[in-house]
Amino acid sequence: MTRDGRGATPGTGRVALVGAGPGDPDLWTVRAARLVREADLVLYDALIDGDSLRGLTRAQLFCVGKRAGRASVDQDTINRLMIRAARRGRRVVRLKGGDPFVFGRGGEELLALAEAGVACEVVPGVTTAVAAPGMAGIPLTHRGVSSAFVVVAGHTPETLDGALRAVRPDGITVVVMMALAGRAAVVDRLVAHGWLPETPAAVVCAAFTPDAWTWTGRLRELAAVEPPAGLAGVLVVGDVVDVPASVAAAIAARQGPEVGEVRYGRN
Amino acid sequence: MTRDGRGATPGTGRVALVGAGPGDPDLWTVRAARLVREADLVLYDALIDGDSLRGLTRAQLFCVGKRAGRASVDQDTINRLMIRAARRGRRVVRLKGGDPFVFGRGGEELLALAEAGVACEVVPGVTTAVAAPGMAGIPLTHRGVSSAFVVVAGHTPETLDGALRAVRPDGITVVVMMALAGRAAVVDRLVAHGWLPETPAAVVCAAFTPDAWTWTGRLRELAAVEPPAGLAGVLVVGDVVDVPASVAAAIAARQGPEVGEVRYGRN
Repeated sequence: MTRDGRGATPGTGRVALVGAGPGDPDLWTVRAARLVREADLVLYDALIDGDSLRGLTRAQLFCVGKRAGRASVDQDTINRLMIRAARRGRRVVRLKGGDPFVFGRGGEELLALAEAGVACEVVPGVTTAVAAPGMAGIPLTHRGVSSAFVVVAGHTPETLDGALRAVRPDGITVVVMMALAGRAAVVDRLVAHGWLPETPAAVVCAAFTPDAWTWTGRLRELAAVEPPAGLAGVLVVGDVVDVPASVAAAIAARQGPEVGEVRYGRN
Repeated sequence: MTRDGRGATPGTGRVALVGAGPGDPDLWTVRAARLVREADLVLYDALIDGDSLRGLTRAQLFCVGKRAGRASVDQDTINRLMIRAARRGRRVVRLKGGDPFVFGRGGEELLALAEAGVACEVVPGVTTAVAAPGMAGIPLTHRGVSSAFVVVAGHTPETLDGALRAVRPDGITVVVMMALAGRAAVVDRLVAHGWLPETPAAVVCAAFTPDAWTWTGRLRELAAVEPPAGLAGVLVVGDVVDVPASVAAAIAARQGPEVGEVRYGRN
């Protein structure tokens, strides 16, 4: 078969739903990096940096997420774009922040592709739910502190209330995604569901990007926190938020030239 | 400074706690692959394939996990090995299955390194809690089905009971890690905490390895499932387990040459 100008071969088109991790291309999987490099078309979310993407592939790039002053492309249009390109024989990568199956609508896109008869592969990614707290030195589980964690979406109080009906404040770490704008409502709902205002809490924005920003304190203080405008982030609520302070104290307790440095961020 | 036989430079030693993802080196992060390649010493868990590691680095390799017929190295010894090597100027990678901060004791190792004054970096990985269900086509969240998930450890009924005190069976997806051997007890505890025996359930073993093995059914059937011996795996409980069947039905409903193939596993 002949290949078109962008290298596509009709009949061999396929879509890969690929998790891009929290932000830094260094945290893409090896497989994600290869698929992006070899793609004909990359449809990427707003949280992914288009400029760094440009340096990593010769594929056509199309941002389908919300950007300053422009609305996001709706889900039906994204599905149509993927299906149309794959049917024309193009290798399509749908590049999504974090993991495709964690609040990424990956299941919906997979169904749409299956209904259209388009071959599809799902490539897991480093989920921001784990990596963003990790960047702040917060382990989601820690022996003697927390042996479980729950990940909920906080973009509407209704969604959050629905999820919190299934969780009690009993030693479990809570990660709230898509909750930065509605953080006052998140605090309100957590306290209404029984969380103590003194519970340790953290905000981690733009993890593993140059704009990374972290705050730690108590749940009662969280509503008043003012992260830099325009960043996405996660909230972490639970005693594990105090682990980084223990690490810092251990470092401070040492004297002399052997004192270690701890890094969680970019290389 | 002079470098020793294995390339170490005294005074520049450091440790990276690196998540290796679920099994396939293709799902390492780009950064993990680079750190392993440039390391002097790699201390790796039993779930990581030593043979494939050998082809990716010239570092000294040491398996600290349980292997057939041999006990695992205890945590204090692992800490001592890391600290001693770093103090001798070696670049140490502590390579852990999944993510270092999800049941990986990463927080404890970080504390031990901080107390010893050893420089440390934490590199997140693709957590098996998300990737193993994903390999079976199961999204942990799915619009209209589940808007939250909880990750618990099932290696002892006591640990599981402690975690389940904080969770109710109300639309939330449950992922149970380290639960294969004790799966009968897991079913027992979930039902005791209110999960219905008819709840969809899945077992995913050795995700993204050549031994990958998946079962889906109902919670009441789970105790009798017999996965291949010697594999590690996760259990998934919740309505999202039925999503892959919807995808398969969509594919089966199509006729003719356009029928797509869906892959979640290895390339």
